[in-house]
Amino acid sequence: MIFLNAAAGEDRHAALVEAIGRALPDVPVVRPDNGMDPARITEIFTWLPMPDWQVYPNLRTVYSVSAGIDQFADLPAHVRLVRMVDPNNARRVCEFVQAACLACLRNLPKYAARQVTRDWVPATAPFMSDTTVGILGLGEIGAMTAGRLAAMGFCVEGWSRTPRQIDGVVCHSGADGLDALLAQADILVCLLPLTPSITGILDAGLFARMKQGSSLVQVGRGAHCVLPDLRAALKNGQLSQAMLDVFETEPLPAEHPGWDLPNCLVTPHIAGRIEPASAVANIVTNLCRDRAGEPLLWQVDREKGY
Amino acid sequence: MIFLNAAAGEDRHAALVEAIGRALPDVPVVRPDNGMDPARITEIFTWLPMPDWQVYPNLRTVYSVSAGIDQFADLPAHVRLVRMVDPNNARRVCEFVQAACLACLRNLPKYAARQVTRDWVPATAPFMSDTTVGILGLGEIGAMTAGRLAAMGFCVEGWSRTPRQIDGVVCHSGADGLDALLAQADILVCLLPLTPSITGILDAGLFARMKQGSSLVQVGRGAHCVLPDLRAALKNGQLSQAMLDVFETEPLPAEHPGWDLPNCLVTPHIAGRIEPASAVANIVTNLCRDRAGEPLLWQVDREKGY
Repeated sequence: MIFLNAAAGEDRHAALVEAIGRALPDVPVVRPDNGMDPARITEIFTWLPMPDWQVYPNLRTVYSVSAGIDQFADLPAHVRLVRMVDPNNARRVCEFVQAACLACLRNLPKYAARQVTRDWVPATAPFMSDTTVGILGLGEIGAMTAGRLAAMGFCVEGWSRTPRQIDGVVCHSGADGLDALLAQADILVCLLPLTPSITGILDAGLFARMKQGSSLVQVGRGAHCVLPDLRAALKNGQLSQAMLDVFETEPLPAEHPGWDLPNCLVTPHIAGRIEPASAVANIVTNLCRDRAGEPLLWQVDREKGY
Repeated sequence: MIFLNAAAGEDRHAALVEAIGRALPDVPVVRPDNGMDPARITEIFTWLPMPDWQVYPNLRTVYSVSAGIDQFADLPAHVRLVRMVDPNNARRVCEFVQAACLACLRNLPKYAARQVTRDWVPATAPFMSDTTVGILGLGEIGAMTAGRLAAMGFCVEGWSRTPRQIDGVVCHSGADGLDALLAQADILVCLLPLTPSITGILDAGLFARMKQGSSLVQVGRGAHCVLPDLRAALKNGQLSQAMLDVFETEPLPAEHPGWDLPNCLVTPHIAGRIEPASAVANIVTNLCRDRAGEPLLWQVDREKGY
């Protein structure tokens, strides 16, 4: 077992060297510039896909830096892929979505836009109890978020590919279920993973099936959302406002039109964050399980793509 | 008993005429342009003080349109003053403060400012459980808000002139208590009534006693806050951001410097709103109590000023 850390961050690298060295002292932890023959590498920790997976014939496992793993579609099918799961990250995303839903409830993206033009236009806001949040994606983070929003007082409905059950949350699934959710949601939250079948799911067709004047909170992946379609929906009032935390290109370039969609508040991908300590602990746990012949935790189903 | 409705709003006037007519059919409900001799008026419903209180020698009660009553300092001392209390309004303010505290937690005012300049600068946010919200003012709205913020997961402390006790909330009072609160609060929420002794309480001296990098949520009255001092505190980083919902002059004129304080999100006095139906019901209740010789509800202590 030879562990290549191809992810940026010297602090995290030092923590990995220390923790792996303590748990599995015979496992070398190397860096890409270390000169190690790639044919000897068995495990890689990385955020971006490696330039050429073929140079690692003995690669057994790729550990993703984050919960998202869509960037690894080209990884050879026999290589195991492990996502990063951090309970603090789920909680962090959840608190961001709570903030974003309340911001939409009280029209903060709209007022931020009106502040720029110095327009004082008060409007009455509904109560949480009269407002339905629709959550796309009921994985670990989606389910936790749905429960917390319901506990705060929102009406909450959720949608996932396969049927789910969550206390206090109306759960939908499949294509018909998506239409049912869109017909109810005053605030739509995208917490989906990125898979080929739902790339561009937030498009003109979907916006047209949403309630007029509803809001969008986009914390999935940039490629879920067709920004020109969102701009049109915001401009013609089909959507009243949006909060966007993720983009296809990040950091969002200064000249990118994503900065100035109407009534849209942009945040720089801060909903979630994997803490270095959690990442290190998860990897050591899995390396030890692997060594002991136990199944890996948080392994991705390569066929389903999540 | 002759009731003068001096407040704007024809819908509310029609509702008042209808409801008072049903409960007390002998009580005339008049408008200022009605030609009624002011000497016959016994009750007035109004937002602004009347130009000259002396023309109403038989005035017994003034009903304020809102919870705030500071504008009635010149009302003759023998006239009873009744504030508007609307449970829906308290809930509405409370939900706004929940939105504002989460917005500050997740740096939304700061990101809104950076969106204007197209700066992508991600920063890690703390959790609610590591964040203390300090609430100035523990009246009906403050107490409800403190409880809800604590239930969401924030650490909550509160301050009031006289000692209070609220489950799950550390309560301070008096001048020393204020300093203790300011030393703890990561987010300071002003929900105070406006009285002469606390006009301008949010000034350079108070900001200097707050934690460096803390946030301000101002939903009291405009005159609580010295805007040039707030601007200086935001500019030098003593405060990291603010949300301002109230101003001394409203609507805030387009040329007013209140629109562009650094890292400050302005909303057009939308935290609370008294619903016409609640206002009408409260007034009818009190007119009936008055007629029956029972003490009025929601009567202001004219000496204390709240």
